[in-house]
Amino acid sequence: MKYSPLFWPVKLKGKFIYILDETLLPHKLKYIKVGNYKQAVSAIKQMKTRAIGQVLLVMYSFLLEYRRNQNKKNIAQILSNVADAFNSVRPTLSFKFLTDLAIGLHKQGVRLDNGILNFLEGLKAKRIEQAKECSGLIDDKDTILTHCNVSGLMPLIARLCRQQNKSVSFFVTETRPYLQGSRLTAWELKKAGCNVTVIADNMVAEVMKEGKISKVIVGADNLAQNGDIANKIGTYQIAIMADYFKIPFYVLCSPVSLAKTGEDIQLEIRPEGELLEFCGISIAPKGVKGYYPAFDITPSNLITKHIYLNIGDVVHLLNQSKN
Amino acid sequence: MKYSPLFWPVKLKGKFIYILDETLLPHKLKYIKVGNYKQAVSAIKQMKTRAIGQVLLVMYSFLLEYRRNQNKKNIAQILSNVADAFNSVRPTLSFKFLTDLAIGLHKQGVRLDNGILNFLEGLKAKRIEQAKECSGLIDDKDTILTHCNVSGLMPLIARLCRQQNKSVSFFVTETRPYLQGSRLTAWELKKAGCNVTVIADNMVAEVMKEGKISKVIVGADNLAQNGDIANKIGTYQIAIMADYFKIPFYVLCSPVSLAKTGEDIQLEIRPEGELLEFCGISIAPKGVKGYYPAFDITPSNLITKHIYLNIGDVVHLLNQSKN
Repeated sequence: MKYSPLFWPVKLKGKFIYILDETLLPHKLKYIKVGNYKQAVSAIKQMKTRAIGQVLLVMYSFLLEYRRNQNKKNIAQILSNVADAFNSVRPTLSFKFLTDLAIGLHKQGVRLDNGILNFLEGLKAKRIEQAKECSGLIDDKDTILTHCNVSGLMPLIARLCRQQNKSVSFFVTETRPYLQGSRLTAWELKKAGCNVTVIADNMVAEVMKEGKISKVIVGADNLAQNGDIANKIGTYQIAIMADYFKIPFYVLCSPVSLAKTGEDIQLEIRPEGELLEFCGISIAPKGVKGYYPAFDITPSNLITKHIYLNIGDVVHLLNQSKN
Repeated sequence: MKYSPLFWPVKLKGKFIYILDETLLPHKLKYIKVGNYKQAVSAIKQMKTRAIGQVLLVMYSFLLEYRRNQNKKNIAQILSNVADAFNSVRPTLSFKFLTDLAIGLHKQGVRLDNGILNFLEGLKAKRIEQAKECSGLIDDKDTILTHCNVSGLMPLIARLCRQQNKSVSFFVTETRPYLQGSRLTAWELKKAGCNVTVIADNMVAEVMKEGKISKVIVGADNLAQNGDIANKIGTYQIAIMADYFKIPFYVLCSPVSLAKTGEDIQLEIRPEGELLEFCGISIAPKGVKGYYPAFDITPSNLITKHIYLNIGDVVHLLNQSKN
């Protein structure tokens, strides 16, 4: 099976981490080389990578810092600094689960580098399982609406459907202001040989009303314990419309977080300049304000089915490397 | 009372029509000079003007051609050519009402030039009445969400509210792909001294959920006889969300058209390139399709109140100039 570059957008090679620069897609496929966790945090701040890319970046950063400093007396402090830096960078995403895991395991005497590599292999297998479960929900001739980008899972699902002799096509919302839908998802689906049509974010009701959409599939950056999800801004209103038009709304979830409900998830507000400019061109008059909530909460009752990523099953892989 | 340049964006001066080029706003305030109806049709095709601007352009074009050709034998044929050219340029808009009016009046022996000027004066007064009716629906401290651009009516409504000692603020959807919300509405509201915040089209549910919106006010390019409206793509989904969050949804209507219901209104599909490029920069990978319905239909049952523009009351002004 071929994977989208976005399925595993961050790679470890020797003493460096290579991050697929998502801001340059679809025009350039370029990786950014980082050598330490501070550079990694900075790449996240600049939205160079998202979602699974951030998970990989957090874990590879622990691995690098562990390898580099494992014999130092203050290794615990160093790892704690790494955790703090990642935990404060983007409020809506639940890095704390990962950072707690790494810190906890180190305290228990686990060899963090091997443990992390085992864990990530397990995670990869789990993601493939998740795509398989999702492909089982899709019928022949379905037209799927998706929003933003689900880190390489959509083309994988499309390929699995093809293996199952099911023909599927895709509508993708462009996903303003960062256009992850048109730049990333349309790109990876096209690369996978899929039939893909881009629409603006304000065309969802119209294409649903025209009968063009049979299922909605989106990702989730944060899954609360009651099934509410946080995902890219715009997900919530698509869920409201799917409910209105009685179209199934499926969510490819991230692992469950510490949040009890969606109310416990802090929503990141990003700088208004990212909304009011495009490629350096101002698209609004001077002095006008912009409001840019980067995520929204979709309540569990609007979700037809959660497709879980049960990371608990692979956490034990970290422990296999106990000293 | 001061008016937005968008309230009367097309002007007649001597033998020429001057069209405010909306595609250059908010960065440049520039008028395009046209001398005949073919140039006028071409300006509409290129989206240089919309909505009320198109109405003015149709009527001023008849006026110019009438003045230039009134003593020619084939004046009826010339006016019929003008009508045909406008009727075929944008399917969703109801120019036919206007072109039938002009042709019919000429057949009845009306002096078309004076008649049109009287009619447009009457139309202006009606539009001001419409803004007054709308301002009466607004409460102190309301925050109004609007979409696309309602041709100068929103700043007029804001000024009327100020006269009535009511403080109002505005949220404006940017309105992809042409950005009439951020480029035009935010601009004219800012010029009128209003508090205005731009959001992306996918942030509507989130700002509604946060309690930031107390009323929605939009325009309508076509009002069917049963109260369904056609308006800029995205209006329909805002109406669905307003219904979901129980927020009043008001429509500043154009005159009622010949369509019995929204189903009778043909929706214009515009070229995909207008969606997949921005300022000449491609924002999607090569080979990906785009779908760009330029309008959608909002059914009457989602509209809390229609604010009508009763043009029937002023049609008689055309007749005052009977030979």
